[in-house]
Amino acid sequence: MAPIPNPRILFTKAPVAGNFLVEGENIVYEKSPTIDLDQKLESGQFLTKTLLLSPEPYMRDRMRDPSRSSYGTPMKLGQPIVGNGLVLVLRSEKEGIKAGDYMCGFTPWEAYTVQPYVDARVEFKGFAPGTLDMDTLSLHQVSNPGSAFPWRTFCNALGMPGFTGFVGFEKFGDAKPGETIYVSSGASGVGSMVIQLAKIKGLKVIASAGSDEKVEYMRTIGADAPFNYKRSNSALQDELKAHGPIDIYFDNVGGEHLEAALDNMNLNGRVIACGAISEYNIPWERKHGIKNLGRTFPLRLTLRGFIIGDHLGMQPRFLEEIPPLVARGKLRLREHLFHGLETGIEAFQSMFNGKATAKPIIVVDQEYAS
Amino acid sequence: MAPIPNPRILFTKAPVAGNFLVEGENIVYEKSPTIDLDQKLESGQFLTKTLLLSPEPYMRDRMRDPSRSSYGTPMKLGQPIVGNGLVLVLRSEKEGIKAGDYMCGFTPWEAYTVQPYVDARVEFKGFAPGTLDMDTLSLHQVSNPGSAFPWRTFCNALGMPGFTGFVGFEKFGDAKPGETIYVSSGASGVGSMVIQLAKIKGLKVIASAGSDEKVEYMRTIGADAPFNYKRSNSALQDELKAHGPIDIYFDNVGGEHLEAALDNMNLNGRVIACGAISEYNIPWERKHGIKNLGRTFPLRLTLRGFIIGDHLGMQPRFLEEIPPLVARGKLRLREHLFHGLETGIEAFQSMFNGKATAKPIIVVDQEYAS
Repeated sequence: MAPIPNPRILFTKAPVAGNFLVEGENIVYEKSPTIDLDQKLESGQFLTKTLLLSPEPYMRDRMRDPSRSSYGTPMKLGQPIVGNGLVLVLRSEKEGIKAGDYMCGFTPWEAYTVQPYVDARVEFKGFAPGTLDMDTLSLHQVSNPGSAFPWRTFCNALGMPGFTGFVGFEKFGDAKPGETIYVSSGASGVGSMVIQLAKIKGLKVIASAGSDEKVEYMRTIGADAPFNYKRSNSALQDELKAHGPIDIYFDNVGGEHLEAALDNMNLNGRVIACGAISEYNIPWERKHGIKNLGRTFPLRLTLRGFIIGDHLGMQPRFLEEIPPLVARGKLRLREHLFHGLETGIEAFQSMFNGKATAKPIIVVDQEYAS
Repeated sequence: MAPIPNPRILFTKAPVAGNFLVEGENIVYEKSPTIDLDQKLESGQFLTKTLLLSPEPYMRDRMRDPSRSSYGTPMKLGQPIVGNGLVLVLRSEKEGIKAGDYMCGFTPWEAYTVQPYVDARVEFKGFAPGTLDMDTLSLHQVSNPGSAFPWRTFCNALGMPGFTGFVGFEKFGDAKPGETIYVSSGASGVGSMVIQLAKIKGLKVIASAGSDEKVEYMRTIGADAPFNYKRSNSALQDELKAHGPIDIYFDNVGGEHLEAALDNMNLNGRVIACGAISEYNIPWERKHGIKNLGRTFPLRLTLRGFIIGDHLGMQPRFLEEIPPLVARGKLRLREHLFHGLETGIEAFQSMFNGKATAKPIIVVDQEYAS
């Protein structure tokens, strides 16, 4: 068979620290590559077709100057972005993997891939202690969910967002029925997972997002006090004051949200530091300085930062507890679908510019949109 | 006997939040009161002579508008300051307490007191949950240390500073030999206790203070990398960078020190939030905003605030382990003595204006200076 198009999205240049990624400069959609689907596979290789891709905020941190260390290995310049996705095996020379298998895990942002992908992989050498080798988060087989839930659930409730919310809440929340939790970025994959786990556990949930549409979504999944923090300059403080005090703050945002939460924490409160999306794309001089950390000791607060990669040991419990809740409709996570790999950059930016109305998913193969 | 002078130091007016206390306005030395030492005592009362008084930073927080809640009850306006001290019982109508007994604990800043003090006591009613009734930290008998250590040790290594350092380090430090700790305000009572406990446990100690004299003191008690943070604008960052990364930051200071420590934390680091003395006397607009809390999750940091009053259950262990170390010279805490109750305000302010060269003690009775 003749080679067919194999478009991809490349990481081409590290942005200046604190800047937004610029399409065409830092991140490029490349239409021209091709692939011969009949090419010979070496032993151990298998060929996959990309079905769904999941833009996730941590990926922004991987797109950096590799000389700056962080918790995960950087992405490789000039190579496709790598992230979580759902793929279909077309052919396989690897034992235990066969054509027709569905797999989830890390895969390059391109239409077809000879796995294990090699060119986009970073040699794991010379990194600071604690750096996760992101390329070890490899593909694993998943079963066809049939009518239990849509395929895209593997990229959200059952993917990294869901697992991150589960671990953060279960391991660090120490939640007790009747307590109050505040979830920022409540319409995100992580946030909407946490909202629902908290409701199942009997907590009162305050949740914020940046649009009225997201507020409605948060309400439908059970948030008691969802609000649009952009409604007014004082909305954040007003709402937390009205519905607090807060026993648990699940922080996906950092900056002003963290400061406002600290202002409204209850005695013995816990702050789960999961992310700081408000801070990823702004330079140091414009970052919000938090002035009220002096509240940590009068209120006996605990602030705990975690990285999901350290807690893969909780996967079995996650996979035992969560899929039945999803299948029974007890956990309903919404996705914002972007259609076609060519929308990938738009999908990625939508996490940071507020345009995603829920967790973004790139539907690369339109048969897997539902 | 005719009444004799009973000078005292009064809390007369709550300062504007974030301002320094002004002598003569917020805090006043009153020379005129008298007391009749032969006055009849009611059953349960006893008369004490104040020997030593211990200004401690947390007292600043008690001198507030009582409508603002905090972790301890406020002090009572128009009444003597109350704080830790050493007193001698002159006469007693209380069972179990007799003339000649020495006692430590909360006592009003005046020369003589009919105990239990009543007028300076705040009725414990209507306070927010978690507020400590400071007036319950009552006097308890202590033995004459003879030649084992000076009396003032009861106000420092064996007093609240020592106990605070002990609890913070032992309960929240999770220290392992070979790790590195950074102690800010290292020449303070709490700080110098933590430096020495950390050395006993085999840690490398970085410690900061605001004068070369304090640096020398920190060196004599074992700090490996003591430094004067006022030496230059970049001294704090430079020294932490040179001697870090930091596994444990024992924070007595807050603000810039906390931010600089976060910049230099090691993976899985712990921040023990004990105090924020740099922030107590400055208004909100001049407080230092901390911009690097986004480091908590990449570095998997834990920040834990504590209030010593929650941990009185650790007193027995403290009193078993620490006095022998003091007696054997393994724990050497220095005091800066202020002579006479009339120096009390100067002593109090010395904690905040940098004039104390070590933990300040007011020697009210000159026989107890050594």
